[in-house]
Amino acid sequence: MSRIAVYPGSFDPVTYGHLDIIQRGATVFDHIVVAVLNNSRKTPLFTFEERVALLKETTKHIPNVSVDSFNGLLVDYVKEKNLRIILRGLRAISDFEYELQISAINKHLDPNIETFFMMTNNKYSFISSSMIKETAKYHGNVKELVPEPVEKALLEKYKSPH
Amino acid sequence: MSRIAVYPGSFDPVTYGHLDIIQRGATVFDHIVVAVLNNSRKTPLFTFEERVALLKETTKHIPNVSVDSFNGLLVDYVKEKNLRIILRGLRAISDFEYELQISAINKHLDPNIETFFMMTNNKYSFISSSMIKETAKYHGNVKELVPEPVEKALLEKYKSPH
Amino acid sequence: MSRIAVYPGSFDPVTYGHLDIIQRGATVFDHIVVAVLNNSRKTPLFTFEERVALLKETTKHIPNVSVDSFNGLLVDYVKEKNLRIILRGLRAISDFEYELQISAINKHLDPNIETFFMMTNNKYSFISSSMIKETAKYHGNVKELVPEPVEKALLEKYKSPH
Amino acid sequence: MSRIAVYPGSFDPVTYGHLDIIQRGATVFDHIVVAVLNNSRKTPLFTFEERVALLKETTKHIPNVSVDSFNGLLVDYVKEKNLRIILRGLRAISDFEYELQISAINKHLDPNIETFFMMTNNKYSFISSSMIKETAKYHGNVKELVPEPVEKALLEKYKSPH
Amino acid sequence: MSRIAVYPGSFDPVTYGHLDIIQRGATVFDHIVVAVLNNSRKTPLFTFEERVALLKETTKHIPNVSVDSFNGLLVDYVKEKNLRIILRGLRAISDFEYELQISAINKHLDPNIETFFMMTNNKYSFISSSMIKETAKYHGNVKELVPEPVEKALLEKYKSPH
Amino acid sequence: MSRIAVYPGSFDPVTYGHLDIIQRGATVFDHIVVAVLNNSRKTPLFTFEERVALLKETTKHIPNVSVDSFNGLLVDYVKEKNLRIILRGLRAISDFEYELQISAINKHLDPNIETFFMMTNNKYSFISSSMIKETAKYHGNVKELVPEPVEKALLEKYKSPH
Repeated sequence: MSRIAVYPGSFDPVTYGHLDIIQRGATVFDHIVVAVLNNSRKTPLFTFEERVALLKETTKHIPNVSVDSFNGLLVDYVKEKNLRIILRGLRAISDFEYELQISAINKHLDPNIETFFMMTNNKYSFISSSMIKETAKYHGNVKELVPEPVEKALLEKYKSPH
Repeated sequence: MSRIAVYPGSFDPVTYGHLDIIQRGATVFDHIVVAVLNNSRKTPLFTFEERVALLKETTKHIPNVSVDSFNGLLVDYVKEKNLRIILRGLRAISDFEYELQISAINKHLDPNIETFFMMTNNKYSFISSSMIKETAKYHGNVKELVPEPVEKALLEKYKSPH
Repeated sequence: MSRIAVYPGSFDPVTYGHLDIIQRGATVFDHIVVAVLNNSRKTPLFTFEERVALLKETTKHIPNVSVDSFNGLLVDYVKEKNLRIILRGLRAISDFEYELQISAINKHLDPNIETFFMMTNNKYSFISSSMIKETAKYHGNVKELVPEPVEKALLEKYKSPH
Repeated sequence: MSRIAVYPGSFDPVTYGHLDIIQRGATVFDHIVVAVLNNSRKTPLFTFEERVALLKETTKHIPNVSVDSFNGLLVDYVKEKNLRIILRGLRAISDFEYELQISAINKHLDPNIETFFMMTNNKYSFISSSMIKETAKYHGNVKELVPEPVEKALLEKYKSPH
Repeated sequence: MSRIAVYPGSFDPVTYGHLDIIQRGATVFDHIVVAVLNNSRKTPLFTFEERVALLKETTKHIPNVSVDSFNGLLVDYVKEKNLRIILRGLRAISDFEYELQISAINKHLDPNIETFFMMTNNKYSFISSSMIKETAKYHGNVKELVPEPVEKALLEKYKSPH
Repeated sequence: MSRIAVYPGSFDPVTYGHLDIIQRGATVFDHIVVAVLNNSRKTPLFTFEERVALLKETTKHIPNVSVDSFNGLLVDYVKEKNLRIILRGLRAISDFEYELQISAINKHLDPNIETFFMMTNNKYSFISSSMIKETAKYHGNVKELVPEPVEKALLEKYKSPH
C-alpha cells in the first residue's frame, strides 16, 4: 500500500513553517504532493507560476516531494489523483478551529479521505505568509523565516517604493 | 407573558445548522421571529428577497415561526417590535467570542434585552453559509447540509461556468 | 405552555455571578428552579444544607425562583420533574467547551431536553466560587462579589486561623 | 519502509471516540499499536488488565491493530520499539493545547519522533472516558457511546448501589 | 534609566478601552507615546489627522502621554526613537493569539524590544473601534464607550443619512 | 519613581521559561522580586526552602533580582511591600484565561495594582514545571529545559526507583 499525502495551500509565499511540515511529513509518508491552490478570487502577491516555482526550488533537495496544483474543491483533486491522505500543519487556536471545520466538511464530502495534522515547530509557530509579506514590504529582515530564493523574490517584489 | 424570540442573521443561505436552532427554539419559545439582516454593505450571494423566500419555504412546516427583516441595529429592531429575547446558535470558539462581544454591546445598548444561546447540534457544527457556498460553487454535494430548496437555489446560482 | 428552567450547579457558595443569571433568567422564564447538586464525592466548603439555605436567603426577593436539589444525572432530575429546559451561564472559553460537552451528552441522553446559555455580565465574569473561597480564606474583601449572607458565612468558615 | 503508529492513552475505558481514531488510522498506517499507559499514580476505574482486555475485545476485528502497554515516558517506549510515529485524536481546544505541549516536549526529547493528529468525528466529539463513567455511574444510557463489551463492564462496575 | 513605552494602534477612533490602557500604563511607565499607525492601505473612517487630534484631545489631561505617528514596521519606529518597550492591551482570545504572533515576530526582528500586555478592564472588554463605528452608524448610544469628543466626531461623520 | 515588579509563582522548580521572563523583565524594571508562594495546601516536589534556594542560585548573576516569599493573597503581599506592579508570563490560551481572571480579581481587591504580562519565548512555550517533573521522574533529558542546579536537584529527587 502506497502512502502519498497531499499538502495543500496557497503558499504565497512558502515559508520555513511550511517547509518544516513538508520535510517532516516526507520522513513518514512515501511521497508528499504539495498542491498549490490556483484560486483566482484572492489576489496573491506572487502569481501562481511564481508560487509553484518557489516551492519547486525550495523542495528540490527532498526526493519524495513533488509540486502540483489544483483548482476547485480539494477533495475533488484528491479523489481524481486516487489519493486519500491530506496533511496539514497546525499552529494556533484559530488555525485549529478552521482546520477542524474544513476536515469535517471534507470528511462529509468524501468519507474515505483522512486529514492528518502535524504541529508546526515552535520555532516557526509565529510565521505566516501574510506576516512575512507585511514584514518584507517594509524591508524587515525575513532571512530566518523564509528560504533564500523566497527572500530574494520578496526583495524583488518590494524593491520599488510603496 | 408571551415569549417571542428573535433569531437574527444574514442567512445567505439558510442551512440545516440554522434550521436546527429554529426548530429547537420553537419548542421552547412561543414564537420565533427569524430576522434577516438587510445590510446593503456586504454583497450576499442571494438577494435579500431570495434569502427571505428560502427561509419562508424551509420553515413553513413550523407553525410558530415567522420570517421578518431588519436594517440597522438589532436592538433597535427588537425594541421597536416590543420584544426582548434574542436567540443565537453557538458553534466554535470564534463564534463564542464574537457572540460574547455582541451580546455585551447589545446589553449595554438596552439592558432590558436578553440573549439566549443554544449549542448547534454536533452533526451540523461544521456547517457555515460560507462553506456551503464554497462547496456548491465547485459542485460539491451539499444535500445533507442544506434543505432541498436551498440546494436547488445554489445549483441555479452556480450553474454557469465560473 | 409553562416555561420552567432548571439552573443547576454546586453553588459552593452562590455568587453575584450566579445571581445575575438567576435574576435575568427569571425575567424570561415563568419559573427558575435552582437545582443544587448534592454530590457526595467532592468535599465542598459549605454543606449541602448551607448551600441551599444561602441560595434561599439570597433569592427570596424573586418570586418565581425556587431552590431544589438533585443527586445523580441532571437529565434524570429534569425528566423526573417533567421539565425540559436547562439554563446555564457562560463566562470563559474553558466554560464554553465544558458546557458544550455537557449539553451534547445531555442531548444524547434525552433529545427532548434543551440547554440555554446566557453570557454572565462582564462585571462578574471573573468571579468563580473557587476564587471567592481562595480570597475569603485570606480575608480578602469579597463584599462586591457575593451577597451579604454569603460574605458572613465565609467569614464564619474562615474565622479560625488556618 | 514500514509505517507503524503508536496510539497511546489510558483507555479507562475505551470509547467509540477512541475506536473511530483507531479504525481510521488503521486504514492509513500499516499497523496501529494501541499503547495503554500503566501509570500507577492515578486510580483508574478499570484495572490495567481490564483496560487491555476491553481494547483487545473491541479491536479484534481490525487485523492491523494490536494492544500493548507502557510505563514511564511515551518517547522511551516508542524508541525501544524502534518506532517513530505517534497518533493522537483531537477534539476540543483544551485537547489542542495540551497535545501541542506534549508533542513539543516529545519532539524535544526525541527529534526523530513525529506526532500525527486526527480530528475526532463530530459524532463522538463530546465523548470522553470520564463523562462515560459519570454517566454510567448513575445508570445513564451509554449504548451509543461505547461498544457493547464496555457497556457491560461499566454496568458490572456500577451495579452495586453507590 | 528612563522607561518610555510605545502604545501603537490605528485608533479609528480611540475608545474608553484604549484610554483605560493609556491611563493605567502612564502610572507605571515614565512616559507613554501613543503611536498612530498611518497605514495607507486600509481606509479608516477618520483621517490620520482626525485620529491624532482625537487622541491629543482625550489624553491632554495626562501629563506623561504624548501622541505620535508611524508608518511601516513598528519595530523600526521603536528603534528609531531609541526606545524598546511596547505596551498592548489584551481583551479576548483572538486578540491573544494575534498579539502573541506579533510580539514573536517583533522579538525576531529586534530581540532587544520587549512587549508588555495589560488586560483591558472588564468594563470595556467588549468595546472595539469597529463595534463603536457599527453602533454609531445606526445612531446607537456610544456615550459610555467613547469620550465626548469622539462621540461628537462620530455623530458628525454619520449625520448624513446612509 | 522606582519601578519594582513582583514576579510570583510556585517555582516547583524554576525552569528556563521562568528565567526567560525574569531576565527580560529585569531589563525593563528597576528590580524584580521573585515571590515564591509558600502555600501549604498543595504538596510540592521541592520544599519551600529548596525552591527559594534554586531560584537564588539560578538568578544570582542578575544584579537587580531578589528572591522573597509570600503566603496568603498576592495583593496583600504586594501592598505590604509598598509595591504595585505584578509581572506574569503568558504561554497558552488556558494560561491566558486563568491570568485574566486572576488579574481581574486582583484589580478588584486593589485597584492600584497593575499586572503586566510578557509572552514566554516560543522556545520555552511548551515547558511547565509539571511537565519537567513528569519527564525527570522517568529520567527523560531536561538539560535544555532547566538550568544545571535544577537538573541536579531533580536527579537527586528521582534517583531512587519509583
